[in-house]
Amino acid sequence: MSDFTDAILQTIRTVTGERDGFVPLHEPEFTGNEAAYVADCIETGWVSSVGSYVDRIEKDLADFCGTKHAVAVVNGTAALHVALLLAGVERGDEVLMPTLTFIATANAASYAGAVPHFVDSEATSLGVDPEKLAAHLEEIAELREGACFNRSTGGRIAALIVMHAFGHPARIAELAAICERWNIPLVEDAAESLGSSYHGTHTGNFGLVSALSFNGNKVMTTGGGGAILTNDTDLAKRAKHLTTTARVPDRWNFVHDAIGFNYRMPNINAALGCAQLERVPDMLARKRVLAQRYAEAFAKVDGASLLEEPEGTTSNYWLCALLLDEEMADQHEAVLAALNDAQLMARPVWTLMHLLPMFAEAPRADLSCAESLASRIVNIPSSPNLVIVAEDAA
Amino acid sequence: MSDFTDAILQTIRTVTGERDGFVPLHEPEFTGNEAAYVADCIETGWVSSVGSYVDRIEKDLADFCGTKHAVAVVNGTAALHVALLLAGVERGDEVLMPTLTFIATANAASYAGAVPHFVDSEATSLGVDPEKLAAHLEEIAELREGACFNRSTGGRIAALIVMHAFGHPARIAELAAICERWNIPLVEDAAESLGSSYHGTHTGNFGLVSALSFNGNKVMTTGGGGAILTNDTDLAKRAKHLTTTARVPDRWNFVHDAIGFNYRMPNINAALGCAQLERVPDMLARKRVLAQRYAEAFAKVDGASLLEEPEGTTSNYWLCALLLDEEMADQHEAVLAALNDAQLMARPVWTLMHLLPMFAEAPRADLSCAESLASRIVNIPSSPNLVIVAEDAA
Repeated sequence: MSDFTDAILQTIRTVTGERDGFVPLHEPEFTGNEAAYVADCIETGWVSSVGSYVDRIEKDLADFCGTKHAVAVVNGTAALHVALLLAGVERGDEVLMPTLTFIATANAASYAGAVPHFVDSEATSLGVDPEKLAAHLEEIAELREGACFNRSTGGRIAALIVMHAFGHPARIAELAAICERWNIPLVEDAAESLGSSYHGTHTGNFGLVSALSFNGNKVMTTGGGGAILTNDTDLAKRAKHLTTTARVPDRWNFVHDAIGFNYRMPNINAALGCAQLERVPDMLARKRVLAQRYAEAFAKVDGASLLEEPEGTTSNYWLCALLLDEEMADQHEAVLAALNDAQLMARPVWTLMHLLPMFAEAPRADLSCAESLASRIVNIPSSPNLVIVAEDAA
Repeated sequence: MSDFTDAILQTIRTVTGERDGFVPLHEPEFTGNEAAYVADCIETGWVSSVGSYVDRIEKDLADFCGTKHAVAVVNGTAALHVALLLAGVERGDEVLMPTLTFIATANAASYAGAVPHFVDSEATSLGVDPEKLAAHLEEIAELREGACFNRSTGGRIAALIVMHAFGHPARIAELAAICERWNIPLVEDAAESLGSSYHGTHTGNFGLVSALSFNGNKVMTTGGGGAILTNDTDLAKRAKHLTTTARVPDRWNFVHDAIGFNYRMPNINAALGCAQLERVPDMLARKRVLAQRYAEAFAKVDGASLLEEPEGTTSNYWLCALLLDEEMADQHEAVLAALNDAQLMARPVWTLMHLLPMFAEAPRADLSCAESLASRIVNIPSSPNLVIVAEDAA
């Protein structure tokens, strides 16, 4: 092991403390009403597609995020898919999105029959770079009859998806202004940013419609689940309709008026989520302490630093991420190997979308910053319980 | 109330006994290990996309159905969607299916970019009528380079979906022979037929690939969930791959080699399902007693009879269905109203797919039998606990 990889390993250990066994990247915590609420579903028989916990989690999520509406769905991918449909994305369209994102963002465009159009990210927020996006649009886009078109492909640019990577808010207000200039609907992929805010406003409030995820590795989990957020009441109604097979209310007849989806969140998953959401503020507080400890510890390490929340934002620090200096990029695999060998789970960022075979032909801007970031990011253990454990050990 | 509607109401009551409150169509029953297994997930922290209950339910379902493989997914609609992809359905293809089915069957074809091509059902099984299907194909189909094409539309006929309505097995062996003659992949929509068999073989074994559903109203429930069944090991592997975002195994890199789906069943839902499946034989036995009681009671009623399992088959009697005689079709709405007004939930069959606006232009065969059936079917309370309640009351 090189001095550099050893320094990283030992620095993480000063924060997490010595622990027996494998330390996961992000472990869920069920120390509240989870078991009670789920048992309630089973006792009352309401486990499936309707139930009081579905109604409650929708209200609680809207309250927590400060949006007018939240529609609970089966997972974050489903939320993104329907968000794009609500934004008006149609077959053959292009959807602007960062190449530095999880596969769900790009797949959602495919499900809607559109192609992703990849743009670059910036190093401070890891989100879409507003200056580079603006320059790219000036170069390739034109407005025709109120819609934005890609001059080189002829495709309509039907939406921009902004993803708040690892919970760090992108420069969403600047991105929203660019969308307004070009008449491009804005969709926020807030799958990773529950609890993150930009100048005091929770992420998910800037887009026409936004997506949350409650997969097992997220800040809170419903087993599998997600939600669509919006401040537009008509879109919220449409979201509920499309995610519940587009069935028209009727005393007993089954009538559907559109190609809908079976994207409801089951009540038993919503019950788990209601209990989790009660504990999100406490979990976020501990994750914040963890991130501060990492940041302080890594301030003393040459060649690597913790990615901190951009100025003016509050990050949920979903996944703590180290960024290796450019001259240390060649140590990236060695660092990943050393940490995982030492039972500290560590991961690179996702393979950039434009490098996957399905998206090899997709339109794109210059992606040099994302490529540099991908060669240098290392996610490290980020569970809220690491703070409890460290304090127990003290 | 007419004498006829009153006779139906009173006859149902002789079977269900007098009950306080609303009697649902199909109520889930959680009297086994449901709470214990779900609590185990929460205690151990394994609620999400991987976990031991997912592995177990896949093994238990394959054992129960006698298939080589079962892949647990997020719901029956997702199972059908992926089943069609596995069968090779592509954009622009036509998928033969009954018009008498739930919306998920037709939607699944739409998700795959195909159009439904509706065929007729028969009165004995409620499934696709083999003789009418064969005649229709002789009239409109041709084989070209090993594939089946619709001569009038030019579309490739890429699959036949056979749905076992209300759990009654269709004449699946005869339908499979027609598929072989025309080289059309066969997909079974077994969403409603867990526990139903055709000449001793469980439904879901006749198609290349089949779909189960565990929605809250089904014989067993996982809250929301479904499964893909197949006897083809390569297709099973492909099903698992496509339903788990098509991620390629790797020590830490995120690489995906196809447009995949987030269709996994969460472990907490699988835990519920493992406990439910343990009790399926008991629930089926009681549903069978209920159906026998209805059949005997309605044998004495002029103008309506219980739909019984076709000869050579065992039905799970998921939903008991009355079929009104043709001359009583004008009483259909009155019967539905009388039963629901009396707190006995009753429902017509689904609006036929070719009558929905999204499928108004879809290709179709003569659908006269399905139209007649839809004007005369009444589903009546079918929960297994109606047998316990009736015996308690005795």
